[in-house]
Amino acid sequence: MTTFTYDQLYSFSYNVFKAMGCSDEHAETAAKVLVSADIRGVDSHGVARLSGYVRLWEAKRINANPTLKIVHETPSTAVVDGDAGLGLVVAPFAMQVAIDKAQQVGTGWVSVKNSNHFGIAGYHAMMALQHQMIGIAMTNASALVAPTFSIEKMLGTNPIAVAIPAGNQPPFVADFATTTASNGKLEILQRKQAEAPLGWVQDKEGFETTNANALKDGGAMLPLGGDREHGSHKGYALGSIVDIFSAVLSGGSYGPWAPPFPAYIPLPDNMPGQGLGHFFGAMRVDAFRPADEFTQNMDNWIERFRQAKPAPGHEKVIIPGDPEREMEVERMSSGIPVVDPVVTDLVAVGQKFGISL
Amino acid sequence: MTTFTYDQLYSFSYNVFKAMGCSDEHAETAAKVLVSADIRGVDSHGVARLSGYVRLWEAKRINANPTLKIVHETPSTAVVDGDAGLGLVVAPFAMQVAIDKAQQVGTGWVSVKNSNHFGIAGYHAMMALQHQMIGIAMTNASALVAPTFSIEKMLGTNPIAVAIPAGNQPPFVADFATTTASNGKLEILQRKQAEAPLGWVQDKEGFETTNANALKDGGAMLPLGGDREHGSHKGYALGSIVDIFSAVLSGGSYGPWAPPFPAYIPLPDNMPGQGLGHFFGAMRVDAFRPADEFTQNMDNWIERFRQAKPAPGHEKVIIPGDPEREMEVERMSSGIPVVDPVVTDLVAVGQKFGISL
Repeated sequence: MTTFTYDQLYSFSYNVFKAMGCSDEHAETAAKVLVSADIRGVDSHGVARLSGYVRLWEAKRINANPTLKIVHETPSTAVVDGDAGLGLVVAPFAMQVAIDKAQQVGTGWVSVKNSNHFGIAGYHAMMALQHQMIGIAMTNASALVAPTFSIEKMLGTNPIAVAIPAGNQPPFVADFATTTASNGKLEILQRKQAEAPLGWVQDKEGFETTNANALKDGGAMLPLGGDREHGSHKGYALGSIVDIFSAVLSGGSYGPWAPPFPAYIPLPDNMPGQGLGHFFGAMRVDAFRPADEFTQNMDNWIERFRQAKPAPGHEKVIIPGDPEREMEVERMSSGIPVVDPVVTDLVAVGQKFGISL
Repeated sequence: MTTFTYDQLYSFSYNVFKAMGCSDEHAETAAKVLVSADIRGVDSHGVARLSGYVRLWEAKRINANPTLKIVHETPSTAVVDGDAGLGLVVAPFAMQVAIDKAQQVGTGWVSVKNSNHFGIAGYHAMMALQHQMIGIAMTNASALVAPTFSIEKMLGTNPIAVAIPAGNQPPFVADFATTTASNGKLEILQRKQAEAPLGWVQDKEGFETTNANALKDGGAMLPLGGDREHGSHKGYALGSIVDIFSAVLSGGSYGPWAPPFPAYIPLPDNMPGQGLGHFFGAMRVDAFRPADEFTQNMDNWIERFRQAKPAPGHEKVIIPGDPEREMEVERMSSGIPVVDPVVTDLVAVGQKFGISL
């Protein structure tokens, strides 16, 4: 474990993106989005993924100099073609289009095709907050999840993020995979050689298992709910909605045809669309009621939920976004711990380009 | 158990709504929405609730002659004041506003205050389908659900419905409570005096229990996921998002202050808004890409998921909306079975107004 400052990880990532050929502006955005995951404690989506992006670029699946453009639009909607760019750059561009449309007509909704992994969904949703808007971000991803009653991996962990501004209270920020547990949490158990709780994964025959490595043995992750009796059909429906909004609406590649993140896995045959898909929404709060009325009621909502009577053994009810915000404060002052395998990986990436960590 | 035709239940409901003083048009809409639940197999939300609506009307909490109006709007948004009307009538009005706005600017988003229970969410979302639009419907509801780490009931079962048109395939229609299991499923177990699976409810001290009656003993329903280890914080976030979009955006009464459905339960003190809230969305498919491209790809999506390899003991993967559509075909031809306690209840409601079942 080595601890780095935010600036160290940001600069290193910026330099790597520059070395890949990104423009200054794109390298800044990509580094900012990437390291926002580390600073918020979502370690699986931060610098731990940097070498993966580099390998996709080496495999010519990521274009370091994309021309991002709107290919279809109405006053409240757009489809953005990401030109195979870094999702870390494509997503903020598309979210800004949604925000601009919301400024004009109250809400903006943007579906994106031909993109790549976009980092943490929460970053993009939170872009709306400074404009007194509700922000929504979702993305499809390579298929790791079996629908209810299936043993075939058909959906990604397909996260949804929703950021809602408040007044005196910090914003409500939900950001979650539509699976029982995120792939990042599963990877932590794999590294520790620990067992997974039942309900997270199934084996290749479709039986629930505590084997955290079941995925590598032909198994699958499970939709939120775990099994039918506990509502996995709801998690499956949510993941499907994310897939359809992100990739069927835009012309991206959906379901089992979503492009894989690991560059060593070949692209699926007969892809029905281009690249990964994302979906973004922005809703101006004052398109519904005066902004100060809304934020006062959000403060009241948050304060009331904070006061909800806790269960034994728990101090308090958590408002979505609390843990990540507290982590950000802590890591901004004490630094960001990075586990050894990731440090080794970053050093190797740096050596490739002559950049020191 | 007695079996009725669709027309019998529709006419009976229509006559009851007329007897409450609804206009012809409102009684037609209310009966159509109500019985759409029975015909689709969602028995908990159909005629089984008719006497509950009548009692709310008797308690002067439902206004049989509401003036439905838009109180705030932009090109893509509106807030509708339901004037304490039947949610069964308010919701289709508001969804139509969303559809009209989508015709104009690509999408329409409507938040509703001062409403009541709106029947099944799926009905309203499906209104969009005939316009080649994606439809979204959600509502808050009386607090039965404890957030993760809490023993206090703060949220309703807050359902989400999303209807997506296809081409040759039937549409994708997801409609689910954001809890592990719907209250309707819990009520079935209560009637049978059967145990609930772990993960559905907790007792008044916050411990998981198989007691299907735990709710009456001070317990609570659990958010989708069941417990923290299985992602209940995600179900809690989803239920919260539904509550905020439905009631904080509109000026409805939210969280633990949502008005209860049973008329014998007093309204909460210090309600921060008016009535129940709903949220509706309509997105024109061709606001994103040509409609035939979209529907062809939806067909491909659905066909591919139908072919997903089934798990042992299961015939096939189900597309959201399949079971309800199959039920509708069956019940349109064979009739709708209604359990004895509901028949007794309907007879009593009829006697009140001199209407025979």
